[in-house]
This record gives sequence, C-alpha cells and structure tokens, in this order.
Amino acid sequence: MTLSPSEPRLDSALGLRERFLRARAESESLVLPLSSEDQTVQTMADVSPTKWHLAHTTWFFDVFILEAFEPGYKPFHPAYRYLFNSYYNGVGPQYFRPQRGHLSRPGVAEIRAYRSQVTERVASLLESWSEAAPAEAASLIELGINHEQQHQELIVTDIKHVLGGNPLHPVYEAPSGLRAVEEAPALRWRAFKGGLVAIGHDGPGFAFDNEGPRHTVWLEPFRLATRPVTCGEYLEFMADGGYHRPELWLSAGWATAQERHWQAPLYWERDGESWSLYTLGGFRPVIASEVLSHVSFFEAAAFAKWAGKRLPTEFEWEIAARGVAEDGNFADSRLFHPARASERMFGDVWKWTASAYLPYPGYREVDGPVGEYNGKFMASQMVLRGGSAATPAGHTRVTYRNFFPPDARWQFSGLVLAEDRA
Amino acid sequence: MTLSPSEPRLDSALGLRERFLRARAESESLVLPLSSEDQTVQTMADVSPTKWHLAHTTWFFDVFILEAFEPGYKPFHPAYRYLFNSYYNGVGPQYFRPQRGHLSRPGVAEIRAYRSQVTERVASLLESWSEAAPAEAASLIELGINHEQQHQELIVTDIKHVLGGNPLHPVYEAPSGLRAVEEAPALRWRAFKGGLVAIGHDGPGFAFDNEGPRHTVWLEPFRLATRPVTCGEYLEFMADGGYHRPELWLSAGWATAQERHWQAPLYWERDGESWSLYTLGGFRPVIASEVLSHVSFFEAAAFAKWAGKRLPTEFEWEIAARGVAEDGNFADSRLFHPARASERMFGDVWKWTASAYLPYPGYREVDGPVGEYNGKFMASQMVLRGGSAATPAGHTRVTYRNFFPPDARWQFSGLVLAEDRA
Amino acid sequence: MTLSPSEPRLDSALGLRERFLRARAESESLVLPLSSEDQTVQTMADVSPTKWHLAHTTWFFDVFILEAFEPGYKPFHPAYRYLFNSYYNGVGPQYFRPQRGHLSRPGVAEIRAYRSQVTERVASLLESWSEAAPAEAASLIELGINHEQQHQELIVTDIKHVLGGNPLHPVYEAPSGLRAVEEAPALRWRAFKGGLVAIGHDGPGFAFDNEGPRHTVWLEPFRLATRPVTCGEYLEFMADGGYHRPELWLSAGWATAQERHWQAPLYWERDGESWSLYTLGGFRPVIASEVLSHVSFFEAAAFAKWAGKRLPTEFEWEIAARGVAEDGNFADSRLFHPARASERMFGDVWKWTASAYLPYPGYREVDGPVGEYNGKFMASQMVLRGGSAATPAGHTRVTYRNFFPPDARWQFSGLVLAEDRA
Amino acid sequence: MTLSPSEPRLDSALGLRERFLRARAESESLVLPLSSEDQTVQTMADVSPTKWHLAHTTWFFDVFILEAFEPGYKPFHPAYRYLFNSYYNGVGPQYFRPQRGHLSRPGVAEIRAYRSQVTERVASLLESWSEAAPAEAASLIELGINHEQQHQELIVTDIKHVLGGNPLHPVYEAPSGLRAVEEAPALRWRAFKGGLVAIGHDGPGFAFDNEGPRHTVWLEPFRLATRPVTCGEYLEFMADGGYHRPELWLSAGWATAQERHWQAPLYWERDGESWSLYTLGGFRPVIASEVLSHVSFFEAAAFAKWAGKRLPTEFEWEIAARGVAEDGNFADSRLFHPARASERMFGDVWKWTASAYLPYPGYREVDGPVGEYNGKFMASQMVLRGGSAATPAGHTRVTYRNFFPPDARWQFSGLVLAEDRA
Repeated sequence: MTLSPSEPRLDSALGLRERFLRARAESESLVLPLSSEDQTVQTMADVSPTKWHLAHTTWFFDVFILEAFEPGYKPFHPAYRYLFNSYYNGVGPQYFRPQRGHLSRPGVAEIRAYRSQVTERVASLLESWSEAAPAEAASLIELGINHEQQHQELIVTDIKHVLGGNPLHPVYEAPSGLRAVEEAPALRWRAFKGGLVAIGHDGPGFAFDNEGPRHTVWLEPFRLATRPVTCGEYLEFMADGGYHRPELWLSAGWATAQERHWQAPLYWERDGESWSLYTLGGFRPVIASEVLSHVSFFEAAAFAKWAGKRLPTEFEWEIAARGVAEDGNFADSRLFHPARASERMFGDVWKWTASAYLPYPGYREVDGPVGEYNGKFMASQMVLRGGSAATPAGHTRVTYRNFFPPDARWQFSGLVLAEDRA
Repeated sequence: MTLSPSEPRLDSALGLRERFLRARAESESLVLPLSSEDQTVQTMADVSPTKWHLAHTTWFFDVFILEAFEPGYKPFHPAYRYLFNSYYNGVGPQYFRPQRGHLSRPGVAEIRAYRSQVTERVASLLESWSEAAPAEAASLIELGINHEQQHQELIVTDIKHVLGGNPLHPVYEAPSGLRAVEEAPALRWRAFKGGLVAIGHDGPGFAFDNEGPRHTVWLEPFRLATRPVTCGEYLEFMADGGYHRPELWLSAGWATAQERHWQAPLYWERDGESWSLYTLGGFRPVIASEVLSHVSFFEAAAFAKWAGKRLPTEFEWEIAARGVAEDGNFADSRLFHPARASERMFGDVWKWTASAYLPYPGYREVDGPVGEYNGKFMASQMVLRGGSAATPAGHTRVTYRNFFPPDARWQFSGLVLAEDRA
Repeated sequence: MTLSPSEPRLDSALGLRERFLRARAESESLVLPLSSEDQTVQTMADVSPTKWHLAHTTWFFDVFILEAFEPGYKPFHPAYRYLFNSYYNGVGPQYFRPQRGHLSRPGVAEIRAYRSQVTERVASLLESWSEAAPAEAASLIELGINHEQQHQELIVTDIKHVLGGNPLHPVYEAPSGLRAVEEAPALRWRAFKGGLVAIGHDGPGFAFDNEGPRHTVWLEPFRLATRPVTCGEYLEFMADGGYHRPELWLSAGWATAQERHWQAPLYWERDGESWSLYTLGGFRPVIASEVLSHVSFFEAAAFAKWAGKRLPTEFEWEIAARGVAEDGNFADSRLFHPARASERMFGDVWKWTASAYLPYPGYREVDGPVGEYNGKFMASQMVLRGGSAATPAGHTRVTYRNFFPPDARWQFSGLVLAEDRA
Repeated sequence: MTLSPSEPRLDSALGLRERFLRARAESESLVLPLSSEDQTVQTMADVSPTKWHLAHTTWFFDVFILEAFEPGYKPFHPAYRYLFNSYYNGVGPQYFRPQRGHLSRPGVAEIRAYRSQVTERVASLLESWSEAAPAEAASLIELGINHEQQHQELIVTDIKHVLGGNPLHPVYEAPSGLRAVEEAPALRWRAFKGGLVAIGHDGPGFAFDNEGPRHTVWLEPFRLATRPVTCGEYLEFMADGGYHRPELWLSAGWATAQERHWQAPLYWERDGESWSLYTLGGFRPVIASEVLSHVSFFEAAAFAKWAGKRLPTEFEWEIAARGVAEDGNFADSRLFHPARASERMFGDVWKWTASAYLPYPGYREVDGPVGEYNGKFMASQMVLRGGSAATPAGHTRVTYRNFFPPDARWQFSGLVLAEDRA
C-alpha cells in the first residue's frame, strides 16, 4: 500500500492521531446495540464474533505498531498474539478460525480493556513522535485504520448473519423513519467508447496494494446500466423460474444452488404469497424499488444471463465510476441496508464484476507480515466494486477492489448490468 | 416414572414446593461463576450453552405444568415453546440442536426473567392446591425436579468442555484447599455369589421409568474391585502402549481412537515428560491416586482388557451397590472433580458398565410427551452407574441408569473392574 | 470356536477335505452369473467387490493354514497378505476398506488362479496328513469353511447392492418358476413359560466362539409370533404413516430415517400407486404374502411399536427355536429372496432381535489372530437370528448369532414379533 | 465453435468421415492394454471409468447426430440417453457423476457394441449425404471428433489415477526404450515487447467457442522461459522447504496442501533417500531433466514465487507460442509421460497460466445443448495452455484453452516461468 503525507479524502487538518482515534471509536459505536451474548456468537466459518473483530483490529496495532515501535514493549496478554491472529503466518500460528465462537474468554469487558490500553499506547506513541511519525510506522498506522474500517463493515455483515438466523429476528437498530416505496428510476444505459485506459491507483492518498500498479488495459466499447438491479427486477427473475432453469447458471453455481436449496437471496423468507426479508432494522416485506442485495456471484451471473445482459468487468466499472461523486448510502446513513435504487455508483451494495481477483501486472506484495494482507487471496475469488450500506463513508474509492468467493452471500452484494456496444 | 407421597431420600418434612424451589435455586447457583459469554457458547453438538440449560429446564415446567394446569395460561414468550424444546416430538418441532450456540437471543437476562416468572407461577400453582397437588401434576413436578438435576450435571460437564477447550484454561471455581496426594487404597476384590437376583426400582420414592420394572436376572458368581481405576493405573496402561495396541480395543473403539487421535483421556495434555489435565479448578498435574475420569466406554473396555479383567454388567454393579451407603463425592462437595480413590461406590465418576442401554423386561414408556424422556434413547448406548462429582447429591440411587454412546468422553466417566469367579 | 471330530450337521462320511472343497466350489458357483465388471464394483463402504470376497476367503486359508503349516511356504503373491487382509491387526496393516472398489488389479482371472492354487495346496496338505490333521489346523480349516460360507452370503447381499442400485435393474438369476401369491398363514402366537434356561452352544459340532459359553438366563413368560412379518403387514404400517410418526421410532432411528429420506424398505420403489422392489431375479411388484426384508433394526423396532408388540430378545428366539427343524428357504433354494411367509423359524430373513451384541458371561476370545474374528465387534450392534435366503444351507443353527449395526439394511433382514405374557 | 470446409491442420484429402472413423478407432486403441476391471473403476469424482468415456463419446454422436439427423431414429438402448449424459441439462437429467464407478452394467462388451453400432450409423449417415453434410451436422460431427479427442486424453489421465493408486503399481504400457537422462537445456529467456495484441481464434479451421472471439489485449513487456520447469528444479524447491513455507503459497493453496498432506507432486513417492514416481510405464526413480508434471496451480504458483518469477498470463503464452511449430511430445509418441525438457512450447505438460478461465469479450455460447460445452464452466478455474503427453497429436493449437480448478493434479500439468521486463 502507499501513503502520502497529505491525505486527500479526509480533512487534511486531521492528523493521523485524530483519524486513528476516530476509527477506533467508530468500531466501538457499532457494537453499542449489541449484548455480550451477541458479540460472542459465530454462525458459520466465514463469520467472526463481534468481540473477535474488536480484539483482532486491536491486535493489528498491538503487533505491527507497539511490538515493533514502542520502547520496552510488554503485551497486554501474552496469549493474544496467537488468539487474535487472523491469518498472518509471518506472525505465527493462528487459533482455528471456524472455532472463534468457541471462545467465551476473553470476554467483552476484557477485550474492551485491551482496546482501551492499545488505543492509548498507540496514541501516546504518536504524540511522542511529535511532528512526524517514522514513515514505516505512519504507513502501518494508516493501513491499520483502513483495516479497522474493513472490520467495521464485517462487524455489520457478521452480526446480521447472527441476528438474521435467529428465529426471533432481533432488531439491531430500528430505522429512524418510514421507508419510501416510490418506484426506482427507469433503467437507462451509459455508453463508453473503450480503447486504451489506465486502471488502478496511482498518486497521493492511501490505497491497498492490490489496487496498483496503475496499468494499461484495452477495453471494447460497452454500456453500463445507470442503476443497480432492484428487488422488483429480481422478483421477476424468480417468477420466471430463475432458480429452476439450469441453462441460466454457471455449472458450479447451479450445483451450489441445488445443494444449499437456494430459492431466493439470503435473508428472504416466503411470507404467504409474497416475500419478506430480514434487515438489521427488522423483518419486513421486500420493497420492489430497493437495491437487490445478498446475492452470490452465481445468482448475479444467472440474473444477468436471464436479462440478456452481462456483468461488467472491474475495469469497465472503474472507467464508468471515474470522476463520479463517491457519495452514496454508506454506513454513516445508519440504514445498514440498501435504499431505493438511484443512479449513484457508490454505496448501497457491492457490485459483483465479471473479473476474477488477480494481481495487476507488476504487482508485488510488500515485504514482511503485512505482505499477507491481500496478495495471498488472489485465487478463486471475484472482484466487487463500489462499497455498500455497511461500508464506512470515505473508506472506498474508485480503484478499490473488494473480493469474495462466488458463492458468498452474507455481504451486501448486488449487481449492475452491462452490455457490449455493437 | 413412579412417585409416592412419602419421598424417602429427601427430608420428608420438605414439601414438593420447597424441593422445587431448592432445585431451581441450585441451577442458578451453578452459573454464578460464569459470564454471559460463557453461558452462550456451544463447543460441540453434544454440549448445550449454559443459558440453554437454564431455559430448557424452565420450558419443562412451562409446557408440562403451566400450560397443562394453570388456569388462563399465557406463555412468557410464544417462541420459547419451539426454541427450548429439546427432543419432544409430542410437543412439536425443535430448534436444530447443533446450532443452539448460534442463538445470542434471548440473552442471559431474559432467560433469568423467564426462569423467575415460571418458578413463581409454578410455586403459586402449588400453593393454590394447598394440601395436595393433583397426582399427575405432582408426578410431573417431581419429574421436572429430577430433570432439572440432570441438567445441573450437564451445566457442569458442558461448561467444562467450553472452558477446557479454551487455550487460556479459565478457572470455573478455584478449589478451596490443597489436594491430598496420598496413595490410593490398594485394589481388593469383593466376591458375589450370583444366582437369581431382583434388579431395578420398585416401591416408594421417585425413580425414572427406565429403572423398572423390577425383574429377575440370573448372575454367575463374580468379583468387583473395591475401588475405581485411578489415574496412576491408567498411566501404566498408557506407558504400556495402551493407545497403540489394537488387540486391546474393540474394533469401533480403535477406529474412533485413530480418527480422533486419542492418546490420553479428554482434558489431559502432555506437559514435558509428564501429563497435566484441565479441571474446573484449573490446569494442573495429573495426580496418580485420583479416580480416572473422562474416558470413553471404548477406553474403559481397552483398559479392562489390558488389565486382564472386564467391566461389570449393570446388574452386577447394582447387586454390589445394594445396601451400600449412597454417599460420596457429589456436586455438593464443590470439587467438581473426582477425588482420591476410595471404596465408596457412589460419586466421583460414572462407572461404565458392560451393559447396553436396553429396556427391562416389561418396560413401557408412559403415555404422553414425557414418554419420550428415556425410552426412545434405548439404542447404541451403554449404561453407566453410580453418579459423579458433578451429580447433585441425592439425585442418583442404586437403580439409577445413566447412558451415553460408547465414544462419549465429556462426562465424568471412569470405571471399576470386575472378573469372573471361577 | 470349538470343533469336535464328529460333525453332526453334515454327513459325517464327508471328510474335512471334501467339505473344504465343496465350500470352495460353492463360492465359485455363486459368481457364475457375474461379469468381471460386476465383480469389481463397490457401492458403499459396507459392500465389498465380489472378487475381493473370492480373494479374501482364499487369503484366510493362505495365511492361517498354508503360512502356518505348509513346509517351505511361499506366497502366491507377496502383496496379497496386505491387500486381502480384512481386519486382522494381528496379521498386519490392511488396505483401506472403503476403497476396495478402487482396485482393478488383481483382476478376476488372477484371483481365480490364486483361489485354485491355494485350494489345491490346502487339499494337498490335508492329504499329506492322511488320517488326521493336527487339531489346531483342523480347527482353523473348519473355521475357514464357515468363514467362506459367511462370505458366500455377503457375495449375494453385496452384489444385490451393486445390481439393485443400477438404474438398469439387471437380473442376477431369473427365478425358475412363477411366484405363488397366495395369502400368508394367519399370525398366531406360541406361548413360552420362561424361567431359567440354558443359552448358547455346547457340546459337539462347530460353532463360533461368540455362541458360547452356554450359560443360564432367566426369562419372563412370553409369546412369539408363529411367522415373520410380511410385506403386506408392512404396507399397512406405511399406509398408517409409519415413516412420518416420530413417536413410533427410537430417537437415533428417526434421525437416520430423516437424514437418508427412508420411505420404505431398501430396494422398494414407488411404482405409480403401488410399490415394486428389486430382487436378484429382477424388478417386480411387492407381494403382500412374502416375508418382509431389507429393513433396519430401527424400522423393525418402529413396526413392532406400531403393532403394539415388541421384538424378541435373542434368548427368547433361541428358546423358541430349540428343537425346531433347521430347514427353510436358504441359498440352496436359489431363490435368493424370501418366499411366502411360513411357520418355519429358519431361513427367508435374519430376524432382528431386541438384544445388543455383547459377550456371553465367561466369553473369552481365542488366542492369536483369529481371536479378532468376533469379539472385537461387540459394540453398537444388534443380534439377528435364524438365517436368510442368502445363507448357505447348513451354515446356521439355533445358537448362531449374526450381528449388524441398527441402521444396516442391505442384508436380508426382517423380524418376527413377540409380546409379554401377562 | 467454428468450422470451415477446409481443415488446415489435418490432411485436407481426408474427409470428415475418415477423420470421424480415425478418432473413433483411436479411442478404442487406447483401451487395448486394459482389462474389463480396469475400465470399470472410478477412484475419485473427477475420474470417470474408461468404459464410461467410451460410452459417453458415443452418446455424443448418438444424441446430437443420430437423434437429430437420422431418419427413423431408434436408440441402441433407451436408458443410455440418461446414463451417459455428462452434464447437458438441455438433454435431460444425468446419472450422479461420483457414482459412475458403481455401474457394472452395461459392461465393456455391451459398450463396445454400442460404439460399433453408433459409429456405423454415423458413417452411413455421412455416406448418405454423399458430397456434403448439412452445415449444422458437419459442425456437430467436427465438434464430436474434438470431443472424442478430449476424452482420449481423459482416458489416459483417468486410468493413470486408477492404476497409479493401486499398491501393485500396474504398468499400462511398457516404454519401448531406455530413457535418456542427459541434462535439460539451460533455462534461457525470450523477451517480448508487449503492446496491443490480438488474442484468440479467428479464421478457418475448427476451434472451440471459448477460443474466441479474437480480441485486443494490451500486454506489458515480458519475458518467458525457453523451457518448462524440470523435476530437478522442483526437487530444489522441495529441498528448500517448499511444502513447509506458507509465505510461498496462496492462502487457499496452503490450506489445500495441509489438508491433503501434499509433500510432493501427485504420483511421487519417497523411496528411501530419493523420490520415485509412478508413470504409465511403471514405477521408477524421478529423472531430474524431465519436465515436471502433476502439480496443481497452487504448487505451480508457489514454485514460481520461490523462484522469484511468476506464471505467464494465457495471453503472454499465446503471443509467445504464435508462429511456433505445434509439434512436441503428444500421445502419438506413446510415452504418455513428459520427456526430457526441451524448448518446444507444445506437448509434454499443460502449462498452468496466471489467467482465470473467463469469457473473452463478446463471447456468446452457441444455441442449443452444445452451448453447455464450455461457457458454463467459466468460474473458479484456471487456464492451461500447450497440450500434454496425453493429448492427441493435432488436437491442440496456439489458441486452445484448457481449464481446471486450481487444486487439480491428476492431469499432466506443469509450468513455464515468466517475468516482467523492467
């Protein structure tokens, strides 16, 4: 990843310390509606308990900043280096991921104390450097802040899986107002001429290493829909036998859908003649004009085929999104759910692309343990773009590459259609 | 199950209401050392979260007493009838057992409120009956008390699995004093002449339906060891290649031991040259004179074969235990761990027997949903006798039949040797 | 196992050598209708390929007779000692059972050569002993003959699983005549007074070690149905919701039936409004008067509960069968399927009993590798009695104990009802 | 796929009928060394029995040619349409793939008869069209020939899995001469300048639909090694801890390697201090100068990282291979194993590329059932290029895209290194 002294997307008057403290506080604010029990549960291997997220993001600063830079470093607890290591073989072995929910201890209170102490020690360290942190430390803290934001999104998506699977359908946070049910805007197409384009991050501002190097790509002319697919459109796909027509599906997708008995997006439940869905604001009817969410790549691809269209490549999406305002329905709206479909390219849902998650030409992992951050996951995953209603505002950007396996559904993931321009 | 007005094992001055309240309070006292997080976790399908035990024992009274006998019954929460049903098909469908640990809600506080309300309502009902409860209700409350006691034992064994699997080895309750490490008494043999004997419960006092009917069994002359197998004896078995000699094992036992990489009893960990073990009082060295625990039937049978002996049948054990004082190291010692081996037949550990868990001649399940209590489990399990350090004092008796599959190790289970009398 | 010089059930004029050769030839005659491909396939872990059975029965004589007694022994092939060892840890490691169907080599022809050579060498050895074989060798050959007969039954049941699962429903051997469809005899009850009885094998003649020692058992008075349950009766159970009423089932049985989607006995297929079934003679309608087969212990127990009766214990069955003619529909009928129900106690189907497969009092495994023959399987299995249409005539007897896990259905297994005599 | 009347890679004097008959005969010649048993076995879900391949390639002509074009079509056997359908939902349901090895019937002889009849009927049909086949039929027959050739390769790789997993290590065909063990040529690098290039098939000659449309790609300058990685180089990787250093591996690759206990390529076995490997010519020592084979994408990527290089993209490989002679060690050498490494780009082993198997811009599946041929597999697989020692000569070409999941090892798969050109 790259870091420059002037951070353009955030108020430049804010120092690194302020942004660090704000990110730490933001994680903690997300768990306010949750009980200790809520924060302990793991409902599948992909989901981590909330308190694990709180501990692991702390571990990141503990191991990569304090252990490396703090004079006379002593750990908060010697076992945490192992317990809260997610996947960094360079740091050492890791507690077995599918059993994170087996650990009742350390409890929520102890993890809160761990957080407080590490936050304070990192803040003190930053103060001790007065004017400027050592470049490597500053770069790692910047990475740690972005890492913390990624886990803020996972806190939301993971607790949704915990609460959404509970027959009581508990509410995380009641929505503040009534939801508009006006129609979605008509689907229109923007045309792009393609040709030689530059893809990926370059220049000032933080970006993850997987967003670069900036490189040249040739694109054929294409069109991109002006808004994402809505629940209403997906209901048409379902009504037209979408889940029962193998010819619409990738082979692996069809096999997955049969095995797991998929008949609708995740969190949808048949409610008499119609469909309802679980949201973090409660269980309620599906709204046709809302942006579709919680579909896998396989479902997105089947829908696109049914519609006679296709998914855009990540390059097409990036070209279309360049220069567009990066605002939208992010976590700061506190909806934690996609809104009525709009022509904004960012927010609401991550958009599945037709691109496999692979290194850009010339990509090199950074040296050291943080080199494991992104590169080692470049197999068998697909790229998603644009950020979701669970993404912290300001976290994503036009070159940002999110990635999940093609069968993943517990993220806020939907799609926008593309087509060739004859 | 049977119930008579005079309950011999408990102070007969205590009315049903007092015993009911005492049992309810005892469950609650067991969870005092536990955090909300501890009470939420499920570490394998056999283990239930503590708060599930607290709720399910309440459900038992809610559904079988209040719903049936309380005028104008209204449930505390309509979903609990489903959520906390363990296995009673006669009541209705059940929430999927291996995912009890997925339910963060209802939380510990809400379950405490559920308990309080149901306890109070049952107590009021009992008061309303003034002198005597209807026979069926009294019988069901008696069953409910015994059911609650069984779950008290499971609260202890299940939380041991939760805490014992945690790399931090958290202490449930520190033992109050130093543990004596004197030698175990020498192993001696008591001889029994066999012949026609009467087996099973009969007469006054509560017993589970599976303890009867009392019936005749023919026994050959046999001898029973005067004390259970100790950790020291089991260490000899291990040192003699016990876990590496298939000729000592039942075929299914050997396959299980290989698959699960068994090298010692559950909770034992190699500690340099010697062995330590996790107890609810903490992690500490194995003590040779202590009663062996946490072995499966398969390990118990392999040990017995190695020793040139055998396990007793449940009938042999019952004959040997008849007339013996039913005291020993039960849960009221608050050791929650077997003590130095003694000649007491009760307490410390459940003793695996050579008997499959099958119905006694003439056995009939009682009518109605509580008929599912015992009978439907009479397949592929082995009988254990004698109660353990986690069993509530006064709960077990000479005819009491506990049962677990032959691969189960998370109970306090050990063995006492037997041999034929030539 | 025991062996006496005078073998009562077989023509005593036949020497050991003649009986040996006859048993070897009988195995080979069973595979005449089978192609090389048929003999190679394994359709589940419990099933072994035909050619494996042919090789393993040969291995038994190769390892236990030739290797031990033949001067200057040289193996037919050095790898076979490993490849065709079933489960004898005393002989050495074993090829992985669930992958026996992965071995295309040695092929059918090579195994035939192996058989021929070993048969001839054992016969020569027997001749070389002229008058009398050494007692241990004679005993092992006798065991090997009985072992071969057991595998003859498995050849039939295993090839039925191979052919029966094939959508083409291939015929093993077409039945020679029309099947009578007259009604089954009415179900009557024979009463037994119980009391102290002697159970198990004693005296002259071969028996497996698990049939002894003869010992005393106390039985309550009981009644046994005069004929086994028929397909017609089982159809009534099915029509009455037998597969949809959990209250009729053991808990483990219900779970198994749900998981495996059991709706009828194995090999039954719905055929419009009625049911057909696969037999080794082809696919054809279920005949109501025929003896029910291919049910698990779980289904047998559910049926008995539905009928308001129970399964007999193995002791009850043995008492009832004592003195009864040991004839019936065995493999020599070449029906390879149960016939119309009759009052014969032997043949047609193995009868599930209510008894777990456990050692008799005083049971000791024999020394050496053949000690692994029976004893190590005495866990988690149920006893079946009486022999089936796939059992070689003369192989079974009144004390014979067959055993399978409670979920096994691919054997010819049915039931006969019992009840208490008030 | 596309088809033109003049087929450039094959002798143009050969008509479609001759090429059809030659392809059919070639399949049959491959099975000559195999017994009926060999042809029946399936050792994992990915492997199909030889006789299934013989039947399925026949099914292709039966269903897509005879059923569609033959007047008065009658099937050889009505069940085969289902039994030998691989994955064409457009044709109908399919027999469960992982159980192809459960089908002993139809046997080898019956499938041979099926082949003969269908071959003859297709040949007659072609004759009946005298001068020219209808364009659609000709195109489908051309596809069927190429399909048959693909299965010829699978016959070889699948039977290698069957024989190679057998402890007897049976030889498929003994190599005709001694293997040279001279050193491999030194590794050199060819430089390419990149820029805008045209990728994919265009123009006359058969190609699969996934090889087009021809389209523009931008490439950065790169270098490609002049020969593939050898066994000797891979032994260095292994000696340097290649299988024990997670930092060299993709995360999913490391997890796979741990789970499956990978310590070397498939078919390699430790033989004292050195390594031997199973080849279709027998079990013998690894030869350092030979081309490495039977590694997964995960191992190829780990090796490349260890070597400080990377895998080429499929586009880089195609540019490098353009204009190069398409000869090499193909199946017509009857080595069925890679030879000493050479600078030929084709043959020996399929080369894993860094490219995910995705549709080219503008790709559309053809209409009808054969549209399922390639497109529906475009998820979670990686592209391999260049053909192997098991590929029929003339089958592959510079634009040919093979594809397998990243954990597949049973194909003849290796790698050639690439690097950026600074």
